[in-house]
This record gives sequence, structure tokens and C-alpha cells, in this order.
Amino acid sequence: MLQIEPAILQYPDWKGHSFLREEVAKFLSDYCHSPKPLKPKNVVVMNGCGSLFSALAATLCDPEDAILIPSPFYGVITEDVDLYSSVKLHHVPLYSQVVRSDVRPFQLTVEKLENSLKEAKKEGLNIKALILLNPHNPLGEVYSSEEMISFLEFAKMHKLHVLVDEIYMLSVFNKTDTFRSVLSLDGLPDPQRTHIMWGVSKDFAMSGMRVGMVYSENRDLVQALDQLGCFHGVPGPTQYQMAQLLRDRDWLNSEFLPENRQRLREAHSFMTEELKKLDIPFLHRSAGFFIWADLSKYLSEKTFAEELSLWRCFLKHKVLLSCGQAFSCVSPGWFRIIFTDQLHKLKLGLSIAHFHFSSCLLVQLNI
Amino acid sequence: MLQIEPAILQYPDWKGHSFLREEVAKFLSDYCHSPKPLKPKNVVVMNGCGSLFSALAATLCDPEDAILIPSPFYGVITEDVDLYSSVKLHHVPLYSQVVRSDVRPFQLTVEKLENSLKEAKKEGLNIKALILLNPHNPLGEVYSSEEMISFLEFAKMHKLHVLVDEIYMLSVFNKTDTFRSVLSLDGLPDPQRTHIMWGVSKDFAMSGMRVGMVYSENRDLVQALDQLGCFHGVPGPTQYQMAQLLRDRDWLNSEFLPENRQRLREAHSFMTEELKKLDIPFLHRSAGFFIWADLSKYLSEKTFAEELSLWRCFLKHKVLLSCGQAFSCVSPGWFRIIFTDQLHKLKLGLSIAHFHFSSCLLVQLNI
Repeated sequence: MLQIEPAILQYPDWKGHSFLREEVAKFLSDYCHSPKPLKPKNVVVMNGCGSLFSALAATLCDPEDAILIPSPFYGVITEDVDLYSSVKLHHVPLYSQVVRSDVRPFQLTVEKLENSLKEAKKEGLNIKALILLNPHNPLGEVYSSEEMISFLEFAKMHKLHVLVDEIYMLSVFNKTDTFRSVLSLDGLPDPQRTHIMWGVSKDFAMSGMRVGMVYSENRDLVQALDQLGCFHGVPGPTQYQMAQLLRDRDWLNSEFLPENRQRLREAHSFMTEELKKLDIPFLHRSAGFFIWADLSKYLSEKTFAEELSLWRCFLKHKVLLSCGQAFSCVSPGWFRIIFTDQLHKLKLGLSIAHFHFSSCLLVQLNI
Repeated sequence: MLQIEPAILQYPDWKGHSFLREEVAKFLSDYCHSPKPLKPKNVVVMNGCGSLFSALAATLCDPEDAILIPSPFYGVITEDVDLYSSVKLHHVPLYSQVVRSDVRPFQLTVEKLENSLKEAKKEGLNIKALILLNPHNPLGEVYSSEEMISFLEFAKMHKLHVLVDEIYMLSVFNKTDTFRSVLSLDGLPDPQRTHIMWGVSKDFAMSGMRVGMVYSENRDLVQALDQLGCFHGVPGPTQYQMAQLLRDRDWLNSEFLPENRQRLREAHSFMTEELKKLDIPFLHRSAGFFIWADLSKYLSEKTFAEELSLWRCFLKHKVLLSCGQAFSCVSPGWFRIIFTDQLHKLKLGLSIAHFHFSSCLLVQLNI
């Protein structure tokens, strides 16, 4: 697997070595079920999707421009787009309350996107793009094709770029949730403004490998990313290893992916059963590594201060959860519970959490 | 050499894994002859020195701030500091003409630094730092300790940060040029504002490996670089390989470095002899991969337009040289000639160049 040839020790094509981009195009064609083979020239490889968010924000936006993102969302993106380029995120708030029987809690709709865009414009913000996470982190939500197309049509109408982050696309572990990649659609509404991201950090559990990729038909964008690529290069030998991994379909299809999904299913099932026993409401989804759960009943007051206090209480007892504030959630009390760990650790964490729920409450009530 | 343990496949410390930073500290302590052992906590590893320039500019400067750099200089730095952070370089022009017998052509002096700083201030520029390349690219210059200390004292007096890029430190191939790293000095004039860079791209001929590092005692800077490190991460397995390489002193000292220096010496000697035969003036230095040569006698007029025309003429005949403009040189006609290639390629390039010198001239004179 280790290959050190002179060519891969030299300065690379900053978009990624052609042998890797070819392999990525084949891989995405297959696993995203694209109607036509995807093209290697539309692939840009960088050292992680954080780098891609940074480079995409820098190329698509001017400083102080803004990007729409439904909240809650994977909070790191805030720094990804801001640290280098001073690009801000404008949140599209999704609420936990269900006001009609035909909507899900935290459901994204075009109406909400429209409202937020209007509000942003009123505030004088120049909205350049929309970020969509599918499958969603932290909600575990998987959008239907119809939903996704409606979001893409909304973006087209307002000439917004769309960054579709599909980094959990191979971590959908129950057949009830059918994931459809944007790349599987027969003709994108606005292909020049639709850019799809994937990486190996989550689906291959290799965040330390620092490999992410974007697929875009926009030549100007690819060229601009090429310019910034010198800051986000992946070592040649790593690119060689990645190409080998993506090419190894036998092992991926017959060993890794089934085993990985089976483990995800089992761990998810264990955790949801435990949450039910504790009478904790949660979103029942089948994608990603986490469960979005409502712990607000343990808050003495429904405030973010109390949410933080509960988070600190968990941490004090060595249970690390992520609180809703970290995802810019608008309703206090929601937590992201990671279930992808060894069973004995999950059991220990749960027993500690359960045991201390009452004491946490007492602390918060200053009793 | 390939090591894939779970820990190195997980999100790393963004400054670099501790095992690598420890190895870097030991390596720099030894090869830079530091009076005291250097500390791993002062090391930040990123994917190449281009990334480090970008991150250092972003952390030390505000947008539109400027950094002093003597010209000619490795031109890529212009984009490194500007692309993400809009930081500009303010050139300290070094001239080829020798006005006094005790100065070298293109010699950097504190007087020139002072003059450029004054001029920058007059232009309303906010100068935050000074970049020094030692050994120098493209001049091949190696500064004496006395010179380097005088530059550092200048910077201290004006409260400027200094980025000392020592990326060619192990590529000094004749004993006539004695390189002394800034890290070998007994007490830096302003340690909180002095930051030393090195990487494996040049000295180990591994630009495709994307590994660079900075050594700085400034805790705030290290912390800020840590924040930006998520965009410049090096894969865990690559970090493991690098640590192994840096640790392998027997091979480095008895095999690689002597052989590498011997090859550099031979290739340099061949090229300088050929330049003498062609009566082409050049700087006789013993560091780096290049010779800075004066081809102005082949220009029909001493202008940059003619320099570019000569460069194009070489290129047309498949000889790639870098012209002075690429290094912001103020005197037209200077070229950087890379001599680190196989002998038969150097011979072929030279014979083509020689054969076409006259025809190039004819082209330029439109004859």
C-alpha cells in the first residue's frame, strides 16, 4: 500500500493527482448512482472538507458576504468559512415544535429558506450561497429527492451557489432512510452553481487522513480552487493510498460497508432503546453517527444558560455530549449524542449520565 | 515505514502529532546547533511552508498590512501571504551594481532595510514583519551571523516580526559558505517576534510530501496557528513517516546528506564551468539548487520586456529558466538557472540555449 515513486514526491497538480481524480470520479459515479459517468476534470481534492469550505468561501464570496445555512448545523463550518475569509453564515432557523401534523420537527422547507433570505437582505447582507448537509449533522435527516430539488430550485431562482455536503452518504444504515445523492439527479437545476462535497473522514472513519473532495462543473471555480490548492495539498503517497482504497470495490462492498452499517445499526439500536427507557425524546433517523435528543426536561429553566450548565455537569462526570448551542440550535435543551463507540463505553456513559441526572438538576437548582 | 494505528487516523492535534513535534525539536536542535534543546511545544507542523506563510500572514497581520522582503526573492511568497489574507509584500530592492569594493552585488544591509521601512511608512503602509530567506532563493546567499543579528536587531528596534525561512539549510554544499541557523544564536534579540521555518520540500527533495514547520517561542502565535491548523493538516500516517525519517540520523548523516551535497557540488561545478565558458556573469554561491546569472548581454535593450522575450525564446526551444521578474528583481536580465538535474539534461539544455542565443537575439531585434 505504501508507494513512493519520484513523481508523487514532486509538486503535484494542486487539484489532486490525475490518478486520484480519475478514481474519485469513478467512485462517485458508482456510489452516487450518477446517470452518466462523472468527469475527473470536475474533481478537486484537498486535505479535508474543512479546507474545501474555506477555499469555497474564499472563491465564491467577498469578505463580509454571507452564506445561508439551516440551523442546527455542524458548528465547525462557522469557523471554516470565516477564519480566513471573513464570510458569515446566516442561519435558517428550524424549530423543534411541530405546528402541523404533516411536518417533521426541524423540517427544512423552501418557505423557511425564502423567509431567511428576505430577512438577510433586509439586514443588508449579500447572500452568495446556501449550504445543505445531506445526510444532516446533527439531525441525521436524509432529504428526499423532491425536497432536495425544491431547495436547488430555490437557489437557482435567487442565483445562489449551493454547497451540498454529503460526507455521511455511505453511513445510512437502515433501508427506511433512502439517501439520494445530488449527483444521482437527472440534470441539476443549476449545474454551474451546484457543488458536491464528500470525504473519507466519516464514511471511512479516517478523519486523520485529511482527504476531502468537491465535484463541480464550474470551470472558473475549479480554476480558482486550483490557485488555493497549494495551501491544502495532500501528500502524494496519501493520494496513492486513497486511490487504492477507492478502487478496492470488492473489499468495500462485501466487507467494509456491510460490516460498518451493521455496527452502526446495532449501536444506534442500543442507544435508542436506552433513550426510550429514560423517556427522552429524540429524532429517529438512520444516518450518521449521532442521535439528536431532547434533554430539556432536565433543564430547570428552558434557557441556553441552563443547557450549558447541564453540558458542564455531564463533562464534570466525564460524559462528553455536544449541546445544541454548538450547532446554533434555536430551541434550548437539545443534545447530540454520539453512538458510534464501543458498547462498554456507551453503557458506562449512559449509566453515569443516568445516575447524575438528578444531581445535575440539583446543581442547577442550586440546592 | 507505513504505520496505520487507530490514533493516527483520528483528528490530530492541529499543530502536529506530539510524536512528530518532539522529533522535529530534536532534529532542529541537532542540525541547527541550538545552544539548548529546542522545545516540542514551540513547533507547529503544517502541510508545507506555503501554508505556513499563509497562516503566519493571517495571524500576524490585518488585511492590507504589509511585510518587508528584500528583492529578488522566491516569488511564490507573494501569493502565499496575499491569496487568503490580502497581505502585501513591500520590497527592499537589492541592486546588481556594486558601488563600493566592500559590498557584494545584491547585498542586503540594515541601511537598505531602514530606507525601505521609511518609504513604506511614507506610503501609509503598516509594516508588521520582515521575511528573510537564508540560504537565499534565488541568490544562493548565506548570511553571516553578524549580518543576521544586525537584521534581527533592526526588526527588534521597529517591533517587527521576522520570518526566517531556512528551507535550504541542509543544502549548503561547499565549506566556503558556512550556514548558521538563527536557532544556533546564543539568545535571539527578540525571541517573541522571531519565527523560524523549515520543511522537507527542498533539503529532502520531497515537495510532494507537503510537510513544513515553524519554530516560535511566541505562545499566542502558536495558539493562533493551532486555530488555522485545521486547514493545513498533514495526514497521520505521513506524520509517522516523517518522524521516522527525521529520527534516522545514521542514514541521514552517513548516506543521504553527504551524497546529496556531493551531487549538488558536482552539478553546480559543471554548470558554473559552462557559464564561464559562455562568459556569462553569475553569483558564485554554494547553497540551494540554482545559480543567479546575468544574461543581460543577450538583451537587445536592458528592459523587462526584453527579458520576458528572452524567457519566451528559451521556452519555445524547451529550455525553462525563471526570469528575474518572477523574483521581483529590479535589474533586468538576471535569470535563475536550476542546476539540480541529471547531467544529460543539463548538457542538452545548455547546448540548446547556446545554439539559440544568437537566434533569440535576432528574434528580439526583429531581424
